[in-house]
Amino acid sequence: MSRRPVIGVMGGGTASPEVARLATELGREIARAGWVLLNGGRDAGVMAASARGAREEGGLVVGILPDRDDRRAAPDLTVAVVTGLGDARNAVNVLSSDVVVALPGGAGTLSEIALARKAEKPIVLLGWEPDASVGVSDLAWADTVEKTMSEVRRHLEG
Amino acid sequence: MSRRPVIGVMGGGTASPEVARLATELGREIARAGWVLLNGGRDAGVMAASARGAREEGGLVVGILPDRDDRRAAPDLTVAVVTGLGDARNAVNVLSSDVVVALPGGAGTLSEIALARKAEKPIVLLGWEPDASVGVSDLAWADTVEKTMSEVRRHLEG
Amino acid sequence: MSRRPVIGVMGGGTASPEVARLATELGREIARAGWVLLNGGRDAGVMAASARGAREEGGLVVGILPDRDDRRAAPDLTVAVVTGLGDARNAVNVLSSDVVVALPGGAGTLSEIALARKAEKPIVLLGWEPDASVGVSDLAWADTVEKTMSEVRRHLEG
Amino acid sequence: MSRRPVIGVMGGGTASPEVARLATELGREIARAGWVLLNGGRDAGVMAASARGAREEGGLVVGILPDRDDRRAAPDLTVAVVTGLGDARNAVNVLSSDVVVALPGGAGTLSEIALARKAEKPIVLLGWEPDASVGVSDLAWADTVEKTMSEVRRHLEG
Repeated sequence: MSRRPVIGVMGGGTASPEVARLATELGREIARAGWVLLNGGRDAGVMAASARGAREEGGLVVGILPDRDDRRAAPDLTVAVVTGLGDARNAVNVLSSDVVVALPGGAGTLSEIALARKAEKPIVLLGWEPDASVGVSDLAWADTVEKTMSEVRRHLEG
Repeated sequence: MSRRPVIGVMGGGTASPEVARLATELGREIARAGWVLLNGGRDAGVMAASARGAREEGGLVVGILPDRDDRRAAPDLTVAVVTGLGDARNAVNVLSSDVVVALPGGAGTLSEIALARKAEKPIVLLGWEPDASVGVSDLAWADTVEKTMSEVRRHLEG
Repeated sequence: MSRRPVIGVMGGGTASPEVARLATELGREIARAGWVLLNGGRDAGVMAASARGAREEGGLVVGILPDRDDRRAAPDLTVAVVTGLGDARNAVNVLSSDVVVALPGGAGTLSEIALARKAEKPIVLLGWEPDASVGVSDLAWADTVEKTMSEVRRHLEG
Repeated sequence: MSRRPVIGVMGGGTASPEVARLATELGREIARAGWVLLNGGRDAGVMAASARGAREEGGLVVGILPDRDDRRAAPDLTVAVVTGLGDARNAVNVLSSDVVVALPGGAGTLSEIALARKAEKPIVLLGWEPDASVGVSDLAWADTVEKTMSEVRRHLEG
């Protein structure tokens, strides 16, 4: 089996400039590491920003769209998986990821954190306020992309 | 349209005796109100307990199973919807409910709370510790079935 | 386990008067037999017609909607399961049925016949032209509701 | 938008040597054309054979698995999308494909042909017996990979 690790990058459909910057930088690092970046695929927020970063570095980006067509797909996806499942696709996002990195987001992102925990996937939180509540406890919190990458590496090797 | 309100009852696959008691009592009250009780369908925890209560009062119970067959279905379901979707069925649970009541549970329940918020469904929390973190804020918290029922009524009338 | 048999009634979103008449009559007979009628839930074609028949006889009708809300639900459903899955809900329809009856329809109905065969569910075809191609062979073909009901009974007892 | 065309290759989980040979050759040609090959992802039949061909030519292969983990994934996938949806993932296969090529298979393949027709996707049948029934009519039938590729090209340009 020669497949490369798949890193799921979750986060809001809207993102502050700071969060978008983190997402893009994370995308670049995932690509440089030779991993696949998987996200929710839409042309918005953390999805678009992380895809852009990975593509700048020639990385492979798989977007798992909730929609029934690709009209709202981010321009930097390598492949758009068109599920037509609505938010039920959030379960597909986490099952398909070897490690899940969650940037700040709303209820959709929280559902992915919870589903990842349910599926016993490693989760790293990046860029959240230190007192943020994500429902699930005992997660790795990182405030930089560098720390996130080393957490991801630890999980991939573990 | 003559359909009756559907109340989704979420909660853990394991439940303490106290939580199971609340779930059964809630099931009874939902049935007495003439509403449909919808839950995750398995013969365990809050699912089995709430189904039992509703059935004792002659209510209609719809279980949305994650499995590909009904071998793990609670005995008190009126109808088992066999989805074969795994945890992606959590999205179906909340979309099918007019109001979602969440009793204490683990990551699966937290995903349903988050998905319900994403789908803009009214949510009532019953029986949680006052300082519990469920990720999503601004929810109605109730410590008795009576208060839960009046919150549900308020949402159905609102 | 006291659940009643669930008979899945599939068929086109548009239906000729003759097919609609068969669907309504089948719905009535399913209700008279004390079984649950499950269909695709929309206010159209075989779905609406079969629901109407079952409800006239006081039967229980579960509609599994592809949509993310119930705006297109048939008026005669007892319960609308709102999946938001699009045509992926066709797999849910067949997994949830003890026996599948397929009336004439288009590609959606053919997908349900094929998925039912894949899931090893008994299938009865009602009202198709004798030379119709449904892809799957060795199915029971009936030209009356009476014959359909006796095929369904045979499968439920078998 | 710079995404490459995605060609869905459907077909049986078991395949005769002749069908497997066609699938491998088709996989090679899809890769040589610079397109993405998408299939059902398992290490069996047309899925494994088409993935092998595409990978031999350095192509990108996306497998959409029905399972909740990747233990049954074909060894030649570039990315495994782990859906946990069972056969409901067949709908994802066709929605994600710009053109669907169906090689001989059983009920699962027939469901994909029907779902592709429902989603109004172009379909090309490769390697079927001339008198095979696939339920859906007016499809392009090809008996060689060369003819299949020219049909696919016609649809991508159309």
